[in-house]
Amino acid sequence: MFQSAEIGHQLTKAAYRAAMPTLRAELLAAQVDLFEQHKTPVLVLISGQDGAGKGETINVLYEWMDARFLTTLAFSQPSDEEREHPPMWRYWRSLPPKGRVGVFAGSWYSDPIRERIEGAISIKELDARAEQINRFEEMLVDEGALVLKFWFHLTKEGQKQRLKALSADPRTAWRVTQWNWDRLKTYDQLQDAARHLLRITNTAAAPWVVVEAADDRYRCMTVGQVLLKAMQNKLAAKEIARTPMAPMVRLDLDGRNVLSVLDLTLTLDDKPYKDELAKWQGRLSELVRDARFKNRALVCAFEGADAAGKGGAIRRIAAALDARQYQVTPVAAPTDEEKAQPHLWRFWRNLPRHGHVALFDRTWYGRVLVERVEGFCTEADWLRGYSEINDFEHELIEAGVIVVKFWLQISQAEQLKRFTEREQVEFKRFKITQEDWRNREKWHDYQQAICDMVERTSTGEAPWTLVEANDKNYARVKILRTLCERLEAALQKPAGSNAPVSDKPTKAKKIKAGRSDSKK
Amino acid sequence: MFQSAEIGHQLTKAAYRAAMPTLRAELLAAQVDLFEQHKTPVLVLISGQDGAGKGETINVLYEWMDARFLTTLAFSQPSDEEREHPPMWRYWRSLPPKGRVGVFAGSWYSDPIRERIEGAISIKELDARAEQINRFEEMLVDEGALVLKFWFHLTKEGQKQRLKALSADPRTAWRVTQWNWDRLKTYDQLQDAARHLLRITNTAAAPWVVVEAADDRYRCMTVGQVLLKAMQNKLAAKEIARTPMAPMVRLDLDGRNVLSVLDLTLTLDDKPYKDELAKWQGRLSELVRDARFKNRALVCAFEGADAAGKGGAIRRIAAALDARQYQVTPVAAPTDEEKAQPHLWRFWRNLPRHGHVALFDRTWYGRVLVERVEGFCTEADWLRGYSEINDFEHELIEAGVIVVKFWLQISQAEQLKRFTEREQVEFKRFKITQEDWRNREKWHDYQQAICDMVERTSTGEAPWTLVEANDKNYARVKILRTLCERLEAALQKPAGSNAPVSDKPTKAKKIKAGRSDSKK
Repeated sequence: MFQSAEIGHQLTKAAYRAAMPTLRAELLAAQVDLFEQHKTPVLVLISGQDGAGKGETINVLYEWMDARFLTTLAFSQPSDEEREHPPMWRYWRSLPPKGRVGVFAGSWYSDPIRERIEGAISIKELDARAEQINRFEEMLVDEGALVLKFWFHLTKEGQKQRLKALSADPRTAWRVTQWNWDRLKTYDQLQDAARHLLRITNTAAAPWVVVEAADDRYRCMTVGQVLLKAMQNKLAAKEIARTPMAPMVRLDLDGRNVLSVLDLTLTLDDKPYKDELAKWQGRLSELVRDARFKNRALVCAFEGADAAGKGGAIRRIAAALDARQYQVTPVAAPTDEEKAQPHLWRFWRNLPRHGHVALFDRTWYGRVLVERVEGFCTEADWLRGYSEINDFEHELIEAGVIVVKFWLQISQAEQLKRFTEREQVEFKRFKITQEDWRNREKWHDYQQAICDMVERTSTGEAPWTLVEANDKNYARVKILRTLCERLEAALQKPAGSNAPVSDKPTKAKKIKAGRSDSKK
Repeated sequence: MFQSAEIGHQLTKAAYRAAMPTLRAELLAAQVDLFEQHKTPVLVLISGQDGAGKGETINVLYEWMDARFLTTLAFSQPSDEEREHPPMWRYWRSLPPKGRVGVFAGSWYSDPIRERIEGAISIKELDARAEQINRFEEMLVDEGALVLKFWFHLTKEGQKQRLKALSADPRTAWRVTQWNWDRLKTYDQLQDAARHLLRITNTAAAPWVVVEAADDRYRCMTVGQVLLKAMQNKLAAKEIARTPMAPMVRLDLDGRNVLSVLDLTLTLDDKPYKDELAKWQGRLSELVRDARFKNRALVCAFEGADAAGKGGAIRRIAAALDARQYQVTPVAAPTDEEKAQPHLWRFWRNLPRHGHVALFDRTWYGRVLVERVEGFCTEADWLRGYSEINDFEHELIEAGVIVVKFWLQISQAEQLKRFTEREQVEFKRFKITQEDWRNREKWHDYQQAICDMVERTSTGEAPWTLVEANDKNYARVKILRTLCERLEAALQKPAGSNAPVSDKPTKAKKIKAGRSDSKK
């Protein structure tokens, strides 16, 4: 891994000076092209040993490039807002938008390496972290990002020399602290941890560039040239290269699927509804005030056809909560800042802090539902969406977030009835748009997409609850009850093990003839 | 103030039920209209006594309105990120965008009232805070926002009854803590503080609505109706009402102004430049590592004509800093999220945390420069811009932020020379656009705008440093020296008293004939 960076690379002043004007001109041109094409964000990770010239190299990049399209992201101790979110949140909030270059002084590699050196994690745990990183970076690249990872390498003797030289110069002496000297003592541990981590994360999509760091000119010129060529390649590429994807295959041998087996005739009368509602709302309000919830958080995802009753269900949950504790996030068209980021970014930015609740009215599943059916993204995009979403939810759950997902299923006949009703009730009228009517025409495509979604994303830790929603009373109580049971079960376990409870049926009765809908 | 809210207002169930459907229909319609017209953000402040039904009212608003356009903003203990920014930062980051309704459970009134009750601030200090609030709200209203402030009032006996009733009901008992009962003991102090603060902040643009809070139906219906009528009025208004503005009057009796008296022939040779640069960069790097800087922050504003050398100056400052400590914020066209907010919002969101440095390449002065000259905003907008900007900087300075502002002045001849040079040097070519050439035609208008800007915003606590920038060496050293001197002076004083040092001349010499420019 580091062998090719211990051979005494260096660049003469003359060679450096000769190459610089062209490099600089082309870097600037590439930056402007990237910005104007608004095609890709560039992530430059500057990693390596202390004293290897990370800060100096970043400063040189600022000299060469246009600061207007350049941002340096630094990560010291996480703030309390960051600590109250999943670990990757701080990196998601720092991602450069399309057309810009983000230089990462410190990154998602810093913690695993540090923890490994300190002996806080085993080599197996390091492997698991590496695997998570790979999937994260793969997602970034699939979303169009250019990910460049530099590792600045020094030999042990080389590091000592660099630290001495920095200490001797009054302009740089301040940068060398006892902490740096201590790191020299852990040189071998760092090498081991880094060698291991770099090997696993040396992917085809986001490979490492190990740079011999002792010579300033060689180091800076390497970074500059690699960055330039990568940007030029990206600009020249006609389209984003795609990981091979297996097309979706869905058989329908017996006409049965997770939606068709739902019993949409289930109802709940008003009287038991009121009692049950009060009971579960009371239970919910207790659970979110439970001391054990203080370092957890709750994310509720609501999906369902138009008029399936998502809003009504969300309001019944909200009514049990303190307004200061929850946030309803309606998911509509993304803003331009959101469009300039990976598709999951706008959900990361709306995650709840510890002790808080986020209610999503439509969710990150838009990618595999509306975007798939309406062709708003490519097939490759939604095909990889399933595992990206699973990874996303896994990261939440690992951080102690309780993730509860509801699909509200209604029949076509019930939807038509509700549309018609809404058009008659004045204060609901605005809710029906041309788009709603149009969506009905794609009913079958949506049902297929929902079945695929449930199949691929109903994980053990974040299962889908399919809700028979033709009867609003029944649906609301089932949702509240499920939510309480999931919360209760999750709070009994330490954060990170969010196994669901079994799907017990709600008290309900079959409806009588006459209210049965067409599907049965 | 509270007299009219102690007369036993109440609403019968029948009257409430009768009015509700229309209210709800019209609220929803108004919300949709506001969202579609994207014209205005609505801020609803819910304030008042504990137990007065703030949370309940917010929940009722959620029942009536469309949660998609509604957000509740709650403010408990500030996070460390919030504590490391000016106090108003947490409210700025929570402002609802145009077309949306933000319900504030807690607001910029909470701290002054609490501090007054605790005796932490005098009545005079309360007045000063009220005045700041008035200016902030006036700015919001001028920027098109609808600001609705509700105060829920209970008599002392009424409050005791409410708390008892809440405690008795198992569904609400959890909401009443010892803290609430303690607030009952400070009832009179709260009344005094609130009465005082409400009187001063009862402005024509954003008046208070005091609501008798004992009866749930009366309270909710009042909030709903006031909100509805205010939204309808806003929708009906043809244009934003403007506070009277005195048009700008600029006399030119003797041809002298702050720009014309600058000696643009000042230069610095390369040899002393190198020494001075190294000296001040070293000094700067010491100052930002000074222990006293840890709970301060530095904001540098750079303005100047195209090609005046802002980028070069910023790079010379950046070179003295650790990449992890500073952020360069280039100010270009606002994103759509930024356009949906008051014009200062995008600067608030880029303010540095404690111990950090923000370098702004173009700034919040765009409003009184390019937006004024190019007509991107109305005359009223840029006229009020001056005091809004002064308030903004004052808030920074009060929070310990050191604000240093540079105007880089070059002559027209020098600009032409640089434009021509840039077109010849390949890696600088992209920097010249048609717009740059076009801007030159408005040279005179810009000079006038700059003079007005200096006159109105060169405050004692945040003065402008006008930099003779025809010679880059001279300009860069003057900027670095000024920055160091301002930092040094500020660090010697407690946060909030950021008086500048006197404007001592930099070592320089007059240039010889032949390099003099046309202006002299």
